[in-house]
Amino acid sequence: MAVLNGAESLLRTLGDAGVEVCFTNPGTTELHLVGALDTVPQMRAVLGLFEGVVTGAADGYARIAGKPAATLLHLGPGLGHGLSNLHNARRANSPIVNIVGDHPRYHKPYDPPLESDIETVARSLRGPIRRPENVAGVSQDAISALTEALEPPGQIATLIMPADVSWADGVAADGNGSRPTVLARPVPAVNPAVVERIAEVLRGSDDSTLVIGGTAARAAGLCAASRIAAGTGARVFLETYSSRLEHGAGLPSFQRLGFYPDQVLRQLEGARQVIVAGTPMPVAFFAYPDQPSRLVPDGAQTHILAEVGQDAVGALTALADLVAPDREPEVTGPNRPALPAGPLTLETWPTVIGALLPEHAIVVDETISSGTGLITATAGAPRHDILAMCGGAMGEGMPLAIGAAIAAPDRPVIALEADGCAIYTLSALWTQAHENLNITNVILNNRSYAILREEWQHLGAGASDPHTNRLLDLTGPDIDFVGLARAFGVPASRATTAEELAEQFTRAIAEPGPHLIEAVIPPIA
Amino acid sequence: MAVLNGAESLLRTLGDAGVEVCFTNPGTTELHLVGALDTVPQMRAVLGLFEGVVTGAADGYARIAGKPAATLLHLGPGLGHGLSNLHNARRANSPIVNIVGDHPRYHKPYDPPLESDIETVARSLRGPIRRPENVAGVSQDAISALTEALEPPGQIATLIMPADVSWADGVAADGNGSRPTVLARPVPAVNPAVVERIAEVLRGSDDSTLVIGGTAARAAGLCAASRIAAGTGARVFLETYSSRLEHGAGLPSFQRLGFYPDQVLRQLEGARQVIVAGTPMPVAFFAYPDQPSRLVPDGAQTHILAEVGQDAVGALTALADLVAPDREPEVTGPNRPALPAGPLTLETWPTVIGALLPEHAIVVDETISSGTGLITATAGAPRHDILAMCGGAMGEGMPLAIGAAIAAPDRPVIALEADGCAIYTLSALWTQAHENLNITNVILNNRSYAILREEWQHLGAGASDPHTNRLLDLTGPDIDFVGLARAFGVPASRATTAEELAEQFTRAIAEPGPHLIEAVIPPIA
Repeated sequence: MAVLNGAESLLRTLGDAGVEVCFTNPGTTELHLVGALDTVPQMRAVLGLFEGVVTGAADGYARIAGKPAATLLHLGPGLGHGLSNLHNARRANSPIVNIVGDHPRYHKPYDPPLESDIETVARSLRGPIRRPENVAGVSQDAISALTEALEPPGQIATLIMPADVSWADGVAADGNGSRPTVLARPVPAVNPAVVERIAEVLRGSDDSTLVIGGTAARAAGLCAASRIAAGTGARVFLETYSSRLEHGAGLPSFQRLGFYPDQVLRQLEGARQVIVAGTPMPVAFFAYPDQPSRLVPDGAQTHILAEVGQDAVGALTALADLVAPDREPEVTGPNRPALPAGPLTLETWPTVIGALLPEHAIVVDETISSGTGLITATAGAPRHDILAMCGGAMGEGMPLAIGAAIAAPDRPVIALEADGCAIYTLSALWTQAHENLNITNVILNNRSYAILREEWQHLGAGASDPHTNRLLDLTGPDIDFVGLARAFGVPASRATTAEELAEQFTRAIAEPGPHLIEAVIPPIA
Repeated sequence: MAVLNGAESLLRTLGDAGVEVCFTNPGTTELHLVGALDTVPQMRAVLGLFEGVVTGAADGYARIAGKPAATLLHLGPGLGHGLSNLHNARRANSPIVNIVGDHPRYHKPYDPPLESDIETVARSLRGPIRRPENVAGVSQDAISALTEALEPPGQIATLIMPADVSWADGVAADGNGSRPTVLARPVPAVNPAVVERIAEVLRGSDDSTLVIGGTAARAAGLCAASRIAAGTGARVFLETYSSRLEHGAGLPSFQRLGFYPDQVLRQLEGARQVIVAGTPMPVAFFAYPDQPSRLVPDGAQTHILAEVGQDAVGALTALADLVAPDREPEVTGPNRPALPAGPLTLETWPTVIGALLPEHAIVVDETISSGTGLITATAGAPRHDILAMCGGAMGEGMPLAIGAAIAAPDRPVIALEADGCAIYTLSALWTQAHENLNITNVILNNRSYAILREEWQHLGAGASDPHTNRLLDLTGPDIDFVGLARAFGVPASRATTAEELAEQFTRAIAEPGPHLIEAVIPPIA
């Protein structure tokens, strides 16, 4: 019987338990794991050239595959580089088995240059942290980490792997192919009494508003919410940013809550009963002087139908069966907008996407200030998924697209990216090319941190004009995204009119492999 | 008298106390600080498009200016992106006032999407952390953070700035221009008894080896060490990676300790007394099976002349005065290598640099496996500084160059970069162009993680051949660094021969502003 080292034990255990992909940017302390990946054919290794690409890809993979990938990162600095998109993944409730290599325990007291406090950095993610102490414990720690990652609603389980545990031999390979048992805990059901109480609320009020999100942003949840609306007159909103929103023709379409507090309070105006399912009670994304943090109208009563991590779809369905037993969901018909003409603007670019979105697309939305028209423009397009940036940390779009494309190789992936965001994780383009992924990146280039100009005006951040503030301006030099993409091996083109975008988008979708279109749009006035 | 808000109070205090530069990639929670930068003319604001550029630049600035810059980062995710180069800065003992914006305290309990555990992430850096609670306390916290940053040998003081403290008014601007007092503690002197004891050691042994580093890697320390060698026969080595090494004609030149344990043990072979000054006792950068962590020959006695953070130059000078009162340092004469011809190799490319290095250059060395010939090739070049990557976290070179160029605008800065390293912080090129900095970036492109192939062989990391391992290979597609640079507004060219590199390097140095040369070198065999 073959003897495995710790690295092989770890990866074989995860592979046998169904983890199919390892996204990695490894270093010396991870090399035995890199070697071990050669021996675990059921696990695909995907290289990123920056750790934020790795962690963002793992998030995108989890959202589409519905199960965790592994990451493999190099010590504290590698985890640091990956932390921003792990933050986003945590906010998306994506399960990830986050493997970080470390020095051997005996080496750490010598404080070598790369000694770093991995555990403290990982603790900021609030997920479980494990560190196998010897090769015999690796497999069980791997199973435990995977089980913890799958804990509803999904979390980031970090496994710190000392190099000497990776390289130590000692585990007999189990020849009989039996799979270790990962007990994914079922999503906890909502107490039927809660559903009944909220049914009473809905029956007793004609000013109810339902805010849904999380797992309820998928078809079954949307349909149940639509039935509830039909049966009770309740208004329904989607949370602002969903991990995975099913959208398009054949599905109910709801307005998303806005980004700014005044927008949300306007949307919820008049609501006497605010009910949430699968998403927290609305709060302001950022704080502003003299504006509230909690975005519920004064005097409204609040009700939680399903906490994040509870079975929101089941609760909504049960609620619909109580309050609207005979109602069907109201779904959007196929209804694409006409192709627009003329310069690209905040109105025309999403219209082009809505007019041309291919079947079964996965749309990654990191458009920030440029994407306000997207949801409306795509509501009648063929059914698709929209992955939003749930944690608000910029630079996840192109990595998310990698993970989504690897989870669903037969689906076209469209990454809609604000220019400022795209820069953080630019080398995602290389991985897209290296893996020949069917991703069309559309960079909305307004040559500014336009969202910060907007925020400046909401905040009253200074006496000067944010449009002339040098720290919010991405000109001088203008960034050439076409050149960047080509340099990473991704075919690219530039569009300044709706016609050009339509022509280039159609071509990019038709050709296999990644493409990038730089869509030059005007700065926000 | 004008009234300042917290943001203005913070930046004005730091500016008045001598902090001249703020490197930043801000977000919404930092916008009042962005606005305040408009009102503090003595502080230059430099935009990075990724936080690793910001923190690496602050490190480079501190190494050349000898005093801290401020950074300004966005919440936990921004700090996360900046963490790797803050790790490097910590290992370089660079002082930095690391400002991180946060939500108002009242907003945090609502757990908005960007709520993050900034303090825990910062704690991994082991420096002090402050969080002003109200506008009245901002100025004192700023002074305290600056004082702490300057604590020998220099540290990273993090100041978490809640947005509501930034935007609150309430501090009367002091009209009389008095500067707040920053009491930089003098570097503690070494006890003369220690110096005398080590003088006795040197007098009593003919197998002594002195390892110097830190502040002792500059002219005065090198000269004192050379005198000690001349007077006692002791051998002298430099630490492997120095924060700032003064090098070139007119200075003593010492061999650096190697990267691998076996190299160091070979260098130190026969030493019965190992004395360190300004650097820790040699330890292995990474651990390897069956190799020691502590790199001191068996049976050797060890002595600390000066701890890191003590006055190593003073101690070496005092020691030289005791054991070599009449000796002069042995310095390298001006002696440039001849310009080589033919293909670029690991031998020819550093020779071109040595032959052509301009006067007063600052050389950033992130060449990793490609740079072994550099120190020898430049030993007789005009006197220059070499900034190495002290923490081992890749991706600091081009940001370090930004900071160095801003600290010393009249000096040419040469960033020597391994291809794999350059990718992590690629958008540093945009900042170089935006600020029109005199930086010549030379990318040593061997189209692989060559260092990991080397390490694989040292570790025995797997049965397969690391030269065919897909995770260590940066081809398919080849990365076009010339295209990347031009897309960020930096003029660029490609060299495959020594003649081409010489011609392009000469031109890049002669022209103002940044340049990039992609030097294509063979993969390591």
